[in-house]
Amino acid sequence: MNTPDTPLLPNHLAGRWQTGTGRGQTLLDPVLGTPLVRADNTGLDLAEGFAFAREQGGAALRALSYGERAAMLAAVVKVLQANRDAYYDIATRNSGTVTKDSAVDIDGGIFTLGYYAKQGEALGEARCLLDGDRIRMGKDPLFQTQHVFTPTRGVALFINAFNFPSWGLWEKAAPALLSGVPVIVKPATATSWLTQRMVADVVEAGVLPPGALSVICGSSAGLMDQLQPFDVVSFTGSAETARIIRSHPAVAQRSVRCNIEADSLNSALLDPAATEGGEAFNLLVSEVVREMTVKSGQKCTAIRRIFVPRALYAAVAQAIGAKLARTSVGNPRNESVRMGSLVSREQYDGVLAGIARLRTEADVLFDGNGGTLVDADAAVAACVAPVLLGTQDAVAARVLHEVEVFGPVATLMPYDSEAQAFDLIRRGEGSLVASVYSENPDFIARAAAELADSHGRVHAISPDVATSQSGHGNVMPMSLHGGPGRAGGGEELGGLRALGFYHRRSAVQASSAALDALVARGVPFKL
Amino acid sequence: MNTPDTPLLPNHLAGRWQTGTGRGQTLLDPVLGTPLVRADNTGLDLAEGFAFAREQGGAALRALSYGERAAMLAAVVKVLQANRDAYYDIATRNSGTVTKDSAVDIDGGIFTLGYYAKQGEALGEARCLLDGDRIRMGKDPLFQTQHVFTPTRGVALFINAFNFPSWGLWEKAAPALLSGVPVIVKPATATSWLTQRMVADVVEAGVLPPGALSVICGSSAGLMDQLQPFDVVSFTGSAETARIIRSHPAVAQRSVRCNIEADSLNSALLDPAATEGGEAFNLLVSEVVREMTVKSGQKCTAIRRIFVPRALYAAVAQAIGAKLARTSVGNPRNESVRMGSLVSREQYDGVLAGIARLRTEADVLFDGNGGTLVDADAAVAACVAPVLLGTQDAVAARVLHEVEVFGPVATLMPYDSEAQAFDLIRRGEGSLVASVYSENPDFIARAAAELADSHGRVHAISPDVATSQSGHGNVMPMSLHGGPGRAGGGEELGGLRALGFYHRRSAVQASSAALDALVARGVPFKL
Repeated sequence: MNTPDTPLLPNHLAGRWQTGTGRGQTLLDPVLGTPLVRADNTGLDLAEGFAFAREQGGAALRALSYGERAAMLAAVVKVLQANRDAYYDIATRNSGTVTKDSAVDIDGGIFTLGYYAKQGEALGEARCLLDGDRIRMGKDPLFQTQHVFTPTRGVALFINAFNFPSWGLWEKAAPALLSGVPVIVKPATATSWLTQRMVADVVEAGVLPPGALSVICGSSAGLMDQLQPFDVVSFTGSAETARIIRSHPAVAQRSVRCNIEADSLNSALLDPAATEGGEAFNLLVSEVVREMTVKSGQKCTAIRRIFVPRALYAAVAQAIGAKLARTSVGNPRNESVRMGSLVSREQYDGVLAGIARLRTEADVLFDGNGGTLVDADAAVAACVAPVLLGTQDAVAARVLHEVEVFGPVATLMPYDSEAQAFDLIRRGEGSLVASVYSENPDFIARAAAELADSHGRVHAISPDVATSQSGHGNVMPMSLHGGPGRAGGGEELGGLRALGFYHRRSAVQASSAALDALVARGVPFKL
Repeated sequence: MNTPDTPLLPNHLAGRWQTGTGRGQTLLDPVLGTPLVRADNTGLDLAEGFAFAREQGGAALRALSYGERAAMLAAVVKVLQANRDAYYDIATRNSGTVTKDSAVDIDGGIFTLGYYAKQGEALGEARCLLDGDRIRMGKDPLFQTQHVFTPTRGVALFINAFNFPSWGLWEKAAPALLSGVPVIVKPATATSWLTQRMVADVVEAGVLPPGALSVICGSSAGLMDQLQPFDVVSFTGSAETARIIRSHPAVAQRSVRCNIEADSLNSALLDPAATEGGEAFNLLVSEVVREMTVKSGQKCTAIRRIFVPRALYAAVAQAIGAKLARTSVGNPRNESVRMGSLVSREQYDGVLAGIARLRTEADVLFDGNGGTLVDADAAVAACVAPVLLGTQDAVAARVLHEVEVFGPVATLMPYDSEAQAFDLIRRGEGSLVASVYSENPDFIARAAAELADSHGRVHAISPDVATSQSGHGNVMPMSLHGGPGRAGGGEELGGLRALGFYHRRSAVQASSAALDALVARGVPFKL
């Protein structure tokens, strides 16, 4: 019985396209349930591929200045812009996202690349980054120390998440390539098509040196085994996979540098002085609804816990529920649909199971499910409508501070004092972002000072920036992305800070004459 | 049969002195073989102790400004200076070091504390560190991002090495305490007496808030289990223990931040243009001899591999050997002794075994052993005289680039070209330091640029800084200490850079008014 197979995605490794010799895993349309393409890397010579990237790709990239590598990024931007329509088509078919949500991934990735192209241009002809000033080491001013950042002489392996097949690649690849470090990306299988297609377009265009950018689709088996001491690995995904990566001998024993961005329970905090229907109140309601529904809540940065003064609990619940009720869910090809599907039926099952777990401690305040989907079959499509849960006892709750449901789901909780609110937010044990809604700059500054150590980002929305603020969940390239503890402890983006991960910092202690010659190769690393 | 026991070192935990309930491990005089004191922490309530440090100590430290914490460090300096004689006595008895070598540990530690006291004073009344400039997020200048560093809300656990019981504590504790993070130190048992005594003096003096500084002697069992997501752990020691620490669920799963400084095969490189008896040649010979003999070569930063132009191999071997021949070895209490003992008979056995391994690939060029020890019994004392090994084939060697012998031992190797020399140095797979000996500033700059990515520090010795240079192996507080790969991948010191490990970086995105209020709490983090 031979059914016609879907195409097998070729992998780009060792400077050539290589197709796996296995059956592969089939990628599906999460709305229609139809097969699209297959991912497989069986039989690939990984050692050859990593060595090629490390030696050919790395040497070629390091031979260029920052300015020249920035120009390469600008060329990549042009290639991707020329092929945008194909990417939106793949996103609709493989991620089940509406156009606006596809844009977060596709245009967000291109924007981030463009940002680094511009930042890198300013670094010009330099070959290394000068970290801080030259410092005298003793009484004699002739002997001094100068810290420098030089690119690591290895590859950057990216093991990426399913929710951002485009942005997830480029937000990491832009600083890596600008640093002079070759990239090998292993996208999450479920949505690897878009990543593979983008790499294919860039390779086809010939704008990067051979070995600078490789893509491996399918299983991640054996990839970590290839890593050597000067390589780095950056992972986005679950805490459990993070544990496996960090325990691998490459990291645990050979000190391969490792950046992890794991899931977290991000918070929204309403000022204790807020009033029903007041500006801060309305800003919180709008932002929560947006965060719950953009990409069907499949963002690591989405709001999962909402903390409001106890007196406003019912009013906030009512206002959020009323807005969520207007969210049409279904087939993203229908223009009346505001929210598409999750990326897979597995995620659908996971979200339903997660909601059930949260319900052991929370009431349902709003549930959009039960109605009909637009142009989609509920038995096939991975569509879940928004669900707002709530509890009156945030202090006693455990599951609500621990379980992240990766879908259009959030939990409302009341607090009784400012100090208690901060404590409750910290119960997430480290998150990517907390947002604060207030008309009072002093409260915002106090909240930022209290929450900064447990969050990679604090996002404050006040009436004066209501229209210009960048959004709780949007990751902007000039700000740090990452978070301590539960969030994985990693650091990405933050402008040129991102280059630090791909460079090695070293102190050069030498005479003034030698440091003069060294400094001529560099440019100040100014943030 | 009851022999009188040596004293049991009390542990300071949960703000009080607590003695273990077990027999403990006995610390010995490595020259005389006599018992000194015992270390034990059996039965201590670790959970209580860590919670006390985290909650009481952390809150008290964070309530102070950087300037106030810097003043505390200055008070610690005074306490330690007042007790210096006792520390030298303990070092002689427990580490077997001559006075000059004890100073590297004791005065080196006090100097580093004093350095951070001074650096911290300049931070004044600030409560957080401002990382870089405020950056506009879009067209509207009102909404901006400001990165800040705030102290992590946890404890810093130090698991330290035997070779620096004083400096190893203070070079880590100074930046931790200045950052506002309480310290729990677990010194290596063999030399834990000095660490315990210093902590006891500081606690006795009452210059730190309760919970700010704790010491646990003896086994490290159970310590890692206490770590929570906002804690940090800093380890100095073997690659094997580093692997265990990084694989522990606290690090692998809970993302506890982890700094590792492991052993490495540091190099010395003589300029290809050097001539026999020339200035660079002589500077290399002197520095190698010093590095091999200071603290009997028990420094993570000591020179293990010496790379010279092939034509100079024999001459360098002869010159180093001639100087080493003048090194008298034995009981540090005898003033004619230049080099004391290793810290223990176990280390003695390890060094002899290591030399045997190196000899599978190298010839003996000089061996100071076989003569008599000064005032010491060779059957008891952990004394090893300097050994210089060498091979003509550095490229074929494997063991010589892999096995670190932690004693007065180094291996001489010739190179045939500049590029080959850099490749051979990188065969160490990441080291703490490489030193370069040259009269040519351009060669030094080129070597620094080539070696910076595989070394935490590049130290260049040229004739103009011959008397002012700080020494290949001396770790100065203004320069980074650490190294990639084999060296553990950690970063310590480097002036205020060290504070980064004890702070969390966060991006605060807010209106100008809110950022004005936040920035008023901070001080620019300027390097």
